[in-house]
Amino acid sequence: MVRRVAVLTSGGDAPGMNATIRAIIRAGIANNLQMYVIFEGYKGLVEDNIIPVDRTFVSEILMRGGTIIRSARLKEFKDEAVQDIAVANLKSHGIDALVVIGGDGTYRGAIALAKKGINVIGVPATIDNDVVGTDYTIGFDTALNTITDAVDKLRDTSSSHQRCTIIEVMGNSCGDLALFSGTACGVDLILSIEYRPTNEEIIAKLRHIHSNRARHALVIVSEKLIPNLQELADLIEDNTGFDTRIEVLGRIQRGGSPSASDRVLAARLGVHAINLLVDGQRNRCVGIVNDKITNTDINEAFEQKRKTNEGLIKVISTLK
Amino acid sequence: MVRRVAVLTSGGDAPGMNATIRAIIRAGIANNLQMYVIFEGYKGLVEDNIIPVDRTFVSEILMRGGTIIRSARLKEFKDEAVQDIAVANLKSHGIDALVVIGGDGTYRGAIALAKKGINVIGVPATIDNDVVGTDYTIGFDTALNTITDAVDKLRDTSSSHQRCTIIEVMGNSCGDLALFSGTACGVDLILSIEYRPTNEEIIAKLRHIHSNRARHALVIVSEKLIPNLQELADLIEDNTGFDTRIEVLGRIQRGGSPSASDRVLAARLGVHAINLLVDGQRNRCVGIVNDKITNTDINEAFEQKRKTNEGLIKVISTLK
Amino acid sequence: MVRRVAVLTSGGDAPGMNATIRAIIRAGIANNLQMYVIFEGYKGLVEDNIIPVDRTFVSEILMRGGTIIRSARLKEFKDEAVQDIAVANLKSHGIDALVVIGGDGTYRGAIALAKKGINVIGVPATIDNDVVGTDYTIGFDTALNTITDAVDKLRDTSSSHQRCTIIEVMGNSCGDLALFSGTACGVDLILSIEYRPTNEEIIAKLRHIHSNRARHALVIVSEKLIPNLQELADLIEDNTGFDTRIEVLGRIQRGGSPSASDRVLAARLGVHAINLLVDGQRNRCVGIVNDKITNTDINEAFEQKRKTNEGLIKVISTLK
Amino acid sequence: MVRRVAVLTSGGDAPGMNATIRAIIRAGIANNLQMYVIFEGYKGLVEDNIIPVDRTFVSEILMRGGTIIRSARLKEFKDEAVQDIAVANLKSHGIDALVVIGGDGTYRGAIALAKKGINVIGVPATIDNDVVGTDYTIGFDTALNTITDAVDKLRDTSSSHQRCTIIEVMGNSCGDLALFSGTACGVDLILSIEYRPTNEEIIAKLRHIHSNRARHALVIVSEKLIPNLQELADLIEDNTGFDTRIEVLGRIQRGGSPSASDRVLAARLGVHAINLLVDGQRNRCVGIVNDKITNTDINEAFEQKRKTNEGLIKVISTLK
Repeated sequence: MVRRVAVLTSGGDAPGMNATIRAIIRAGIANNLQMYVIFEGYKGLVEDNIIPVDRTFVSEILMRGGTIIRSARLKEFKDEAVQDIAVANLKSHGIDALVVIGGDGTYRGAIALAKKGINVIGVPATIDNDVVGTDYTIGFDTALNTITDAVDKLRDTSSSHQRCTIIEVMGNSCGDLALFSGTACGVDLILSIEYRPTNEEIIAKLRHIHSNRARHALVIVSEKLIPNLQELADLIEDNTGFDTRIEVLGRIQRGGSPSASDRVLAARLGVHAINLLVDGQRNRCVGIVNDKITNTDINEAFEQKRKTNEGLIKVISTLK
Repeated sequence: MVRRVAVLTSGGDAPGMNATIRAIIRAGIANNLQMYVIFEGYKGLVEDNIIPVDRTFVSEILMRGGTIIRSARLKEFKDEAVQDIAVANLKSHGIDALVVIGGDGTYRGAIALAKKGINVIGVPATIDNDVVGTDYTIGFDTALNTITDAVDKLRDTSSSHQRCTIIEVMGNSCGDLALFSGTACGVDLILSIEYRPTNEEIIAKLRHIHSNRARHALVIVSEKLIPNLQELADLIEDNTGFDTRIEVLGRIQRGGSPSASDRVLAARLGVHAINLLVDGQRNRCVGIVNDKITNTDINEAFEQKRKTNEGLIKVISTLK
Repeated sequence: MVRRVAVLTSGGDAPGMNATIRAIIRAGIANNLQMYVIFEGYKGLVEDNIIPVDRTFVSEILMRGGTIIRSARLKEFKDEAVQDIAVANLKSHGIDALVVIGGDGTYRGAIALAKKGINVIGVPATIDNDVVGTDYTIGFDTALNTITDAVDKLRDTSSSHQRCTIIEVMGNSCGDLALFSGTACGVDLILSIEYRPTNEEIIAKLRHIHSNRARHALVIVSEKLIPNLQELADLIEDNTGFDTRIEVLGRIQRGGSPSASDRVLAARLGVHAINLLVDGQRNRCVGIVNDKITNTDINEAFEQKRKTNEGLIKVISTLK
Repeated sequence: MVRRVAVLTSGGDAPGMNATIRAIIRAGIANNLQMYVIFEGYKGLVEDNIIPVDRTFVSEILMRGGTIIRSARLKEFKDEAVQDIAVANLKSHGIDALVVIGGDGTYRGAIALAKKGINVIGVPATIDNDVVGTDYTIGFDTALNTITDAVDKLRDTSSSHQRCTIIEVMGNSCGDLALFSGTACGVDLILSIEYRPTNEEIIAKLRHIHSNRARHALVIVSEKLIPNLQELADLIEDNTGFDTRIEVLGRIQRGGSPSASDRVLAARLGVHAINLLVDGQRNRCVGIVNDKITNTDINEAFEQKRKTNEGLIKVISTLK
């Protein structure tokens, strides 16, 4: 039976990580578990930066962005010798299970520990929405709202000057931030891995808009999709007549108080993670699939591929 | 075959109504339909306040709260004679179908028109999340974020003065706004139709908090649940020692620019409404069920009862 | 020479109090003073709830609403015997001076202590902008922005339904919150202590608006000005035809992260308070007058009367 | 006597331009003037893109970012022949005076027209706070709040990863946005034209912070100050051990709904501009100096130099 459970956050931080930590700690204590936190992710695990915590540790953190137990990257964690130190540290505290909060890289570390006999539970938290075993990750909704707010601001200035504004959003290798924020903002063009108009289509669309006096254009592009955004801007400027500017939204997308929806998801997934441990389950990752809280074997999840939201792409095509 | 389609908004306004109007108008035009808007809901329909519109009518409205075609209540619409005027007005414009955006009251009007041979499609938009045929209504997510933001502000002052603050939120006869916002804000107590601690439980919980020096308490209550909030405040004050204040959030919950999630839902449901008409379907209401866009017969939907989110209530019980 | 300085917050909390505490503590330490905080205002002073602090005590508090050292009211503080306990507590810690953050009531307590030989400095922080010796108080700008945001939301729903919405804002006995927010929001009518149209003027104005189809009206009213808002609403409804609703914004006006301007004012006034002590000054209150940081004798300040912003009232009359 | 007055916006757009347009148009109409707007700044003036407007033209624009009459740049406006066309267009409409809203470049165009006998009034609106004849420009306060909000978000992620984050803010050749936002956010270092620590000071400060485990650092830099931010980042990374990232906030700083303070300033300056015309004054620029609404000869203003806010720089030095 599980009695001592530790929590860590790892990889890029996401809004809602603190709400998730709070839910896990409170649900653990409600189930009479002794809860621990590990500071700075796998780095802190290897350095034995581990402390037991009670309910007061998580008071007044729910609404705060970032992660109060901090995150870090540790390349050396792929070495088995380093993993063995981590395992030894967990055992020295008598910790029976580890809940990891983060994205795919975080899960990879957890799978390595699972192979060495540690019971791990993964909770998906990243703004990129690119984690297996869940339709939505904690942090995605907040990042969408942050992007939407930024694009609404850029629209003011783009419209006042009748410009074409190219906006780069995050998402790593997943286009969801671009597709959802582009739909939310009603932009003129979206370019993502899953939906990529040709240069000819881009120019035709923007020429059509430019021919309409007093109009401006907004284009949302996924990061990493286009090697050189300036070339795209030049292409547009040369072929459409639009004064064209590039805006890279950057890490403001990672920060901020979590949205209501992300906080609720954090509560639900955090409680589910503890419920699985109490039920004696091992090596699962939790998620929300078809609006139901669920869980998957963390190894199997990794072999699946995320599906593209074809329905949303059709909506984008209709409204363009 | 449908060729002329009109849109109206009715009942309480909700953030995302304008985004819905935009999606319907643009999707209609993309499908070569002639689109109309009716101002001021069924009142405008009876008064023939109907105009044809093109794409420019809906430009730059996506991000605006409220409804640019306005809403109104018309008690007389339950009279068949009044409904007949509405039908005659639609026919005089050659309008084949009517898309209504709103809540249950709005659907009721649509069903009356359906009985008289008008093809109607319902799109659920209200902050109360109390419409049949959908898990979530357009506007609910924005209202949740507005409440969350307000509660975060009230927490500052409640905490500085170590008070108990009772916050009344909207929701009509549905507790979702209370349950979701209470979870999102991590409040100490939630009182809704679906989840109602006894007075003894309320007092025990708040006494426990008050015994802990330097603590404060937040209580979220659904509107219409408790006839006299002042009595509840007095009960708490007399039995726990807490200086207790009441805050009624009011209609700020109805306003504001829609959240990213509500804008995306508006786009998806608006396009689906037009797709149904183009496919020759009649008298449906659209919705999102298990995270899939779907539709139901508008008469049948009305006979169903909304289910309580039991999973969320368990999460609340665990984290309390 | 001053060597030990204590800080307290008292009265209603205001956004920017934490930023003020931070500025005072950091400026004190930069001047080699030993800094103390007193929890829960004069109550904590009498109960000897006083601790020495270093820079880490104020890290990451700048952006938070409320006051981390909390506030409280203590009616008994007007008794000299109670004040004597306060003085004894300060002396027992060897504290040479006390910086009080708050409004008029807070200053009154400080003046009592000054009479007993304690060196006091007042820093004005309240959303009501009703403190002597300063044109603007810390927290006023944030509250204005909170009101403006709320009124923008209420405008959405008021406009969608063509209603008259009466909005009560705070301000205690000072109309600045009403006058400034009414100007910022471009409302149709403002009712404050300094600017009070007659009932005839109110009705004439709203009748004129109502005669214009599809219009709505917003009215901002200072708290405590009108004994019964429902009577005003009934008067309007009976005489203009407007469906009229009342919204009381409540304590959300006190909370939230401080605006940029309030944070800068907090930094400037906090540093100035410490500079005065280092310069050997006694019993001053700091403020911003004609956009310059300044200070006044705290006793004299109390005898002055705040001037009404006549320029702003003329602007309101012109734009109405 | 002035009877017909036109308004234009020119140069970079700023939040509050629409509120300014509204105040000018409404104040003009209240004084029985016939008001005109010119679209797209001096370009529209030369192209005769001028229309008469009434009160409804400015309804519901107060809270919107950008400028509904749009802005544009017209290099050719420095040619007298082009200016003569502008003058002729104004005369053909019988326009007696022109109110220009913008920054220094906008004033330069107005001065050219003044030399040709047109009565011009300048109203300062730019986020950069770099206009003569005023302490604060319309739009500055909103941009400060936008930066503050963005830095608060970046703090979450910077702190979670214990990074040094360099944030570039706008301001053109004026450091006010950096100095005020740096103070508002309590950042560790500010680099502006007026306040420029040496590289040695930068490294010493950041080394000190880095030596303190679990700390992160925020640096705000004025645009155009440092030719290559990557070199600064490399310098910091090589000499302090901090993982260092650059964030360029970009044009989101120009957009968004104006803050309460900017809206009030817009109302006051807009009304003052019309009052000057009604009083028969010529060629003035309006401003707020020592918190009083005032005006200056537009030619003389141009010869003055803006003063650095020495008081604020001392505050920054104390709190660093």
